[in-house]
Amino acid sequence: MTQTNAIILARAVDAKPVAGDFRMQASELVAPGEGELMVRVIYLSLDPYVGSALRGRHMTRQPQPGDVIPGKALGQVVESNSAQFFVGDYVTGEMGWRELALVSAGQMRKVDPGIAPLSTQIGVAGMPGLTAYASMHHLAEVKAGDQVLVSSAAGPVGGTVGQIARIMGAANVVGIAGSDQKCSLVTDAYGFDDCINYKDPDWKDQIAAAFPKGINVYHDNVGGELLDTALANLADYGRVVLCGLASQYHADERPAGPNPGVFIVKRAKVMGLVVYDFAEDQPMVSQKIGQWIANGDMAYLEDRVQGLDQAPILFEKLMRGENVGKAIVAVAPESL
Amino acid sequence: MTQTNAIILARAVDAKPVAGDFRMQASELVAPGEGELMVRVIYLSLDPYVGSALRGRHMTRQPQPGDVIPGKALGQVVESNSAQFFVGDYVTGEMGWRELALVSAGQMRKVDPGIAPLSTQIGVAGMPGLTAYASMHHLAEVKAGDQVLVSSAAGPVGGTVGQIARIMGAANVVGIAGSDQKCSLVTDAYGFDDCINYKDPDWKDQIAAAFPKGINVYHDNVGGELLDTALANLADYGRVVLCGLASQYHADERPAGPNPGVFIVKRAKVMGLVVYDFAEDQPMVSQKIGQWIANGDMAYLEDRVQGLDQAPILFEKLMRGENVGKAIVAVAPESL
Repeated sequence: MTQTNAIILARAVDAKPVAGDFRMQASELVAPGEGELMVRVIYLSLDPYVGSALRGRHMTRQPQPGDVIPGKALGQVVESNSAQFFVGDYVTGEMGWRELALVSAGQMRKVDPGIAPLSTQIGVAGMPGLTAYASMHHLAEVKAGDQVLVSSAAGPVGGTVGQIARIMGAANVVGIAGSDQKCSLVTDAYGFDDCINYKDPDWKDQIAAAFPKGINVYHDNVGGELLDTALANLADYGRVVLCGLASQYHADERPAGPNPGVFIVKRAKVMGLVVYDFAEDQPMVSQKIGQWIANGDMAYLEDRVQGLDQAPILFEKLMRGENVGKAIVAVAPESL
Repeated sequence: MTQTNAIILARAVDAKPVAGDFRMQASELVAPGEGELMVRVIYLSLDPYVGSALRGRHMTRQPQPGDVIPGKALGQVVESNSAQFFVGDYVTGEMGWRELALVSAGQMRKVDPGIAPLSTQIGVAGMPGLTAYASMHHLAEVKAGDQVLVSSAAGPVGGTVGQIARIMGAANVVGIAGSDQKCSLVTDAYGFDDCINYKDPDWKDQIAAAFPKGINVYHDNVGGELLDTALANLADYGRVVLCGLASQYHADERPAGPNPGVFIVKRAKVMGLVVYDFAEDQPMVSQKIGQWIANGDMAYLEDRVQGLDQAPILFEKLMRGENVGKAIVAVAPESL
């Protein structure tokens, strides 16, 4: 038996999660069985969908009090009972909020540490990057000259969406974010053409002004008024990728959506995106984004804390929308 | 100058149109100028979009009191000032609610009277058929084995949608209509597998029961609760064509639509359809549907009145949803 620390759900959650909903606890792990690995967690990714899952509002299982919090992580194999992985290999996958994880080898993906900084493999080059790639490449099918609007543009998905749209030839990439500080990041670091702060009183007019010819592609992470406003400014035949509903993850009631009349008049094509559908593209996308980072074609930013015990605090910040960049917990050093 | 009768808008309309909103009036037409034709109207099509146009709720121009009511018709050329058409040719196009129409030759389409009954060229083989074809072929891209739900299935668009879906290989075609009489037509005449009367108290359960594996394709003419219920029963990756909003054409406020969360979870692809975008396909589609009718592969039904003066009465019936089949006014005999 091996001792490790893990963070568990301390109590049932029925509102936006806060740090006090979590507790660190020592636990014991048995040695890896056939086809299993013991992995030393290096970087833990904190993601908004976990907040929804804690409230039973996500398609993944709802954790119960006492359960370890689910989470994607990057780690290094310290014991292997699988022919596919050697001790020392870097892997990503679902490990939970822990320092050591006992995992099934079949659920892990081996990572080449030579392409780009290791943490990007669970950040911009990981699931957020896959989401962004699926949105722009598979669903919106961005073409040269497209006018593109991206909500939650300072976040790891939105920031990557806009940069991929630009790489695919979009003529005008405009972000939406919730503060002037975030907007500066979107234009200065991520290179968007413009960014609109949706807390400005005239944000709707700013969106209309940014798209005199209409919006060809809108990537929606938010729903609500942002979606309504994007639809009102959509060009004919505009494509809308619905990827998240940040405006209502923690609302008590699910609000109604836009009147479908606008979809008809604009001949809109509206598509729901669930990133799990594109899982088999992950190795290809991670490699591609790693190359873009290495070549300087893609920028990313991390909001990082040190030590697993800091995860609940960063998670509360993420839930409040106050983090800037991909939320990452540096659980342990990259090499021992 | 030639004398003719036309039906004009008698007064401004701010509710569901009734027969008393219209008035027959004699008017005079000048001889055709260069590139113009004088056409003897034979069949006049009555269509729901005209009701929306009268209230300024359609993308076409809003008629003002005193204006002739717009309408697609089929007629025969009685005077030609165009090299493209001869006297005696049958043509379809926008002629308005009149007995004689002076039209631009470039706006008319010549019709081969030998394929199928002439009236079908402005009925099932005309704009309603083009709408149905665009929905199933271009947007939903029906595949063999698809489970298909069609609203307003007793109407000329819905009835044709289901029959085209069947021709394209759909495994199960279910209609929705507003009376048991209409439902009998949908199954017995149009050959749908099933039809659900949305006035039955348990219509939502009936829809769920008709699609144990979920709906792959939903053609929506209605919006509102029907759309919500179809979305709730959509299979993953289901395609939804939004084509009409009968539930709200004459509502005082535009109600909200479904929460976009359902689009995400189902990975739905939702597409707005405006038939004018497919105008260049009309000759090909009219020919194809004419052949299907001639071969007995497609059934159609008409709700016909005789004489232009009967148009307002049939139109009021159409607005009330009480007509069964394509609403057609037989204005004059096919040949003199």
